[in-house]
Amino acid sequence: MGGAYGLRRSETGPCLLQLGGAAAMLLIRTTARSCWALQGVPRVAAGACTPWIPTHTHGTWSGSSHSGRSSWRRRATAVGALLGLGSALAYGGHCRQTAQAESSPQDTVLGPFPLYTREEVGRHRSPEQRVWVTHGREVFDITDFLDLHPGGRSKILLAAGGALEPFWALYAVHNQAHVRDLLREYKVGELHPEELTAPAAADDPYAGDPPRHPALHVNSLKPFNAEPPGELLGEHFLTPPELFFKRNHLPVPHVDPDAYCLKVEGPGGRTLSLSLQDLQRRFPKHEVTATLQCAGNRRSEMSRVRPVRGLDWGISAISTARWGGVWLRDVLADAGFAEEPESQRHVCFEGLDQDLTGTAYGASIPFYQAMSARADVLLAYEMNGAALPRDHGFPLRVVVPGTVGARNVKWLGRIWVSAEESPSHWQRNDYKGFSPGVDWDTVDYTTAPAIQELPVTSAITDPPPGATVASGEVTVKGYAWSGGGRGVVRVDVSLDGGHTWQVAEMQGEQQPPGQVWAWKLWQLTAPVPPGTTELDIVCKAVDASYNVQPDTVGPIWNLRGVLSHAWHHVRVTVAEE
Amino acid sequence: MGGAYGLRRSETGPCLLQLGGAAAMLLIRTTARSCWALQGVPRVAAGACTPWIPTHTHGTWSGSSHSGRSSWRRRATAVGALLGLGSALAYGGHCRQTAQAESSPQDTVLGPFPLYTREEVGRHRSPEQRVWVTHGREVFDITDFLDLHPGGRSKILLAAGGALEPFWALYAVHNQAHVRDLLREYKVGELHPEELTAPAAADDPYAGDPPRHPALHVNSLKPFNAEPPGELLGEHFLTPPELFFKRNHLPVPHVDPDAYCLKVEGPGGRTLSLSLQDLQRRFPKHEVTATLQCAGNRRSEMSRVRPVRGLDWGISAISTARWGGVWLRDVLADAGFAEEPESQRHVCFEGLDQDLTGTAYGASIPFYQAMSARADVLLAYEMNGAALPRDHGFPLRVVVPGTVGARNVKWLGRIWVSAEESPSHWQRNDYKGFSPGVDWDTVDYTTAPAIQELPVTSAITDPPPGATVASGEVTVKGYAWSGGGRGVVRVDVSLDGGHTWQVAEMQGEQQPPGQVWAWKLWQLTAPVPPGTTELDIVCKAVDASYNVQPDTVGPIWNLRGVLSHAWHHVRVTVAEE
Repeated sequence: MGGAYGLRRSETGPCLLQLGGAAAMLLIRTTARSCWALQGVPRVAAGACTPWIPTHTHGTWSGSSHSGRSSWRRRATAVGALLGLGSALAYGGHCRQTAQAESSPQDTVLGPFPLYTREEVGRHRSPEQRVWVTHGREVFDITDFLDLHPGGRSKILLAAGGALEPFWALYAVHNQAHVRDLLREYKVGELHPEELTAPAAADDPYAGDPPRHPALHVNSLKPFNAEPPGELLGEHFLTPPELFFKRNHLPVPHVDPDAYCLKVEGPGGRTLSLSLQDLQRRFPKHEVTATLQCAGNRRSEMSRVRPVRGLDWGISAISTARWGGVWLRDVLADAGFAEEPESQRHVCFEGLDQDLTGTAYGASIPFYQAMSARADVLLAYEMNGAALPRDHGFPLRVVVPGTVGARNVKWLGRIWVSAEESPSHWQRNDYKGFSPGVDWDTVDYTTAPAIQELPVTSAITDPPPGATVASGEVTVKGYAWSGGGRGVVRVDVSLDGGHTWQVAEMQGEQQPPGQVWAWKLWQLTAPVPPGTTELDIVCKAVDASYNVQPDTVGPIWNLRGVLSHAWHHVRVTVAEE
Repeated sequence: MGGAYGLRRSETGPCLLQLGGAAAMLLIRTTARSCWALQGVPRVAAGACTPWIPTHTHGTWSGSSHSGRSSWRRRATAVGALLGLGSALAYGGHCRQTAQAESSPQDTVLGPFPLYTREEVGRHRSPEQRVWVTHGREVFDITDFLDLHPGGRSKILLAAGGALEPFWALYAVHNQAHVRDLLREYKVGELHPEELTAPAAADDPYAGDPPRHPALHVNSLKPFNAEPPGELLGEHFLTPPELFFKRNHLPVPHVDPDAYCLKVEGPGGRTLSLSLQDLQRRFPKHEVTATLQCAGNRRSEMSRVRPVRGLDWGISAISTARWGGVWLRDVLADAGFAEEPESQRHVCFEGLDQDLTGTAYGASIPFYQAMSARADVLLAYEMNGAALPRDHGFPLRVVVPGTVGARNVKWLGRIWVSAEESPSHWQRNDYKGFSPGVDWDTVDYTTAPAIQELPVTSAITDPPPGATVASGEVTVKGYAWSGGGRGVVRVDVSLDGGHTWQVAEMQGEQQPPGQVWAWKLWQLTAPVPPGTTELDIVCKAVDASYNVQPDTVGPIWNLRGVLSHAWHHVRVTVAEE
């Protein structure tokens, strides 16, 4: 039994998770932390769930599958290779093995255990409160294992109070018998059977939002805005979609892909209507690896200078994916538009996500950019080789490489060309940068241009702030990116607060000059000067136009807390020798 | 007698200056400070020059001219209006009036005066040494006038030890009878008649270099590299060509425009040969206002952190002109090339300037940029409406808007397309940026990309460092610019070293988004906090991609001292109330 996950919209209630070719389905809850844990649990009988206890897996798909989904699998395998993510596939393999494991008696733990709710488990998130996790329906107290965890205490603590499965999905190494044996030693209870189903919240416009990965740090639940821990973000050149930062302005719309229709208003009042199938059949498919970043990424550093209005993003409102779809310019040409290098018009996008008044999310980009053969603007229906997840715009979104996330309109419904920028609030009265002296009494949104291309930035993803690093030698990791296709050409790292600098090693996809849409991950291993007890680790990047990051946050402070791209500092303690 | 200046090449010796339709010519010297003064002096008889004493002039060309140069004059008038430079035209008018003045007895000062050499005059450049200037062949001691100068002491001191004419050419207000009457009161001598001719330096490869404006601060005489004082630079949106920074790598070549031939190597070995007339007749003329900046601009700030190798540029290795010529893409298309947005080839340029081994200056730009309808790359034969001056590439140069000066190859001789960047030293082994930790023992030029687009920068042109400003209110002026067509969208100015910021007013030509090739001049008038005795004035600019300048120079220090674009500081004293 193959285990491919897909989302299917329910007309009447919460989202359904469908397990591969199996008919097993399960109603899931929509809170961020609890829902994911349920995804791996096939419903084999009404009201009772079989514990999901993984067995040994090699983490790859078998070529001998006889289901009808082999082409999907081949694609997934290719994408997995591209991702460097054996783990993502391993998660799939792991699910598949689960079904076989159900009849495997040696994996079943017997005996009377106390029953807990997820909420009760969730209260155990630190060594002081004891650290509990769940796996299947079993509950474990792993406090005494924290310092024994080969991946480090900080990584295992990401799962504290919640389910292990989403993390094991990312780290395939856990899918081994001895790991499960080890875990069994820490079992303290089981989840209450009622925990495995959840009622729908009928009146909540966000009730239909999709499940999310519990590793995400949630900045706002409704609308959902969340980012992964820096340590996880920095591990993948292509961010696994479940970890890709989520930046929603409104509830995630339910879109039936079969009924989906993109409206493109052409010149002279003619409107082109394109189904998803039209888009996929009539236009050639293209793929682009592009990093998206929210204008508010790293806002928390700015709000430490002076309060700002906005979601308190850390360093991870930035992620990278390989997007697949059709060129926007091909669609616009089909609608009757020709390239006009001197045009000062705009291409406006409207999403299918709406507020209670029916106002949709919207944004625009310059017409010349939309039509440029070098700007690579996509109407994307794939992310890392699979259909767009709902949180990322299923079934179709705009991907404007090198341009602030806010213009990459998700759940795309309508495109038109205008002499003016999009009338949307988010184009005209938000996502603009101001001088540090401008406050809410003096701000005039007409005086600043909309943020489109973003400035050069970088951040340290590992070690995390406050960590203790070994003496002798330290390894620092991070990301670096710049807007407008201006690839990062160098990352300087300092261990002494910016007094001396060393050049980091960079890795990333080779992209043509001027079209470097993806970030670089970087790494520096350097000796820790003997006798040092603390390090103020700093990074700064240089892009292809030799623009650099500003030294400090204060002078770029702005009332909305956008464009926070100063040097990134991480202060750590050096362990005594 | 009309007075249009033109340069005519001498086959055998130094440069000749030709005065309008008149046959009067004069051999001139080639040192930076002394040559300009001679330009206005017609040689009416061998070995003897008539003093050039201006009379009242209205500073405009007469429409009743009967010479064959009226179309040139119309163009010059139009350009003058464009420049906001009555002064430039006034200088011409002034020259014209000179001839009439020769017979005007009331302008002649009689009496026996001591004779001086220019060198002797040049020793009088400060109040301590007394401040002398020349006008025509007369010598004046203006020390006692310094504080009476309506334009301020600092401006008149620019002419100390040299000739007034080049400055009066820029400031037409001086061309009035009462100014000359006033000057006459300070007369202390006359120039020795031998000073008005100069021998040719036969063996000097730089002997044929053109005359330059004495206001320029000379960083290197051979090759000639010089910049205007910041105060003068900041006064003109279009920099008068005589003040436009000069950045020569080699002697200025003598090019006969009638014999000039541009070689364009097309695909398949076909070479296009284009005379200047071919270029002007076969391709449409286009004009672009673009700022050029040397990669080494503001290097002196970097060398104050740690020594660097390179010319010690102040803040003025940046200037703006309106360039006229033909699109490079039109010429390349004529040579057989088609647009290829995905091409990773390069268009290589070679100048006619050569070193003693015959190696020419060279550089390259990406092919896609050369062919882009939005990149506006020009082969320019005009600068501010007149033929290119010799120092700026006569008769033809490349103008690559938004790209470092070094790629704007002057005296263009040859163009070809290559899979590789230009093999030139200046493309491959210079004009690259490195980390502050890289020194001459560790530098590897293959590890850094060639500087092409430049980062955002700004500087304060007025007040100058060390000035005393009035209490009450201060006016700060400067320029701001960014590469890649990313126009400056805001300039922040601080009077307190960067603690608080105010937004400056900007002025400049309206250019389309993404094609903002010209700088912005900016100004801020702000109260000086009572009791303040010193100001640390700072400016920083933000460009259309919201890139900003780094706070400090140290962390962007590099061994070649390029890309010095940190905040600019000017410290001044506040006068007691």
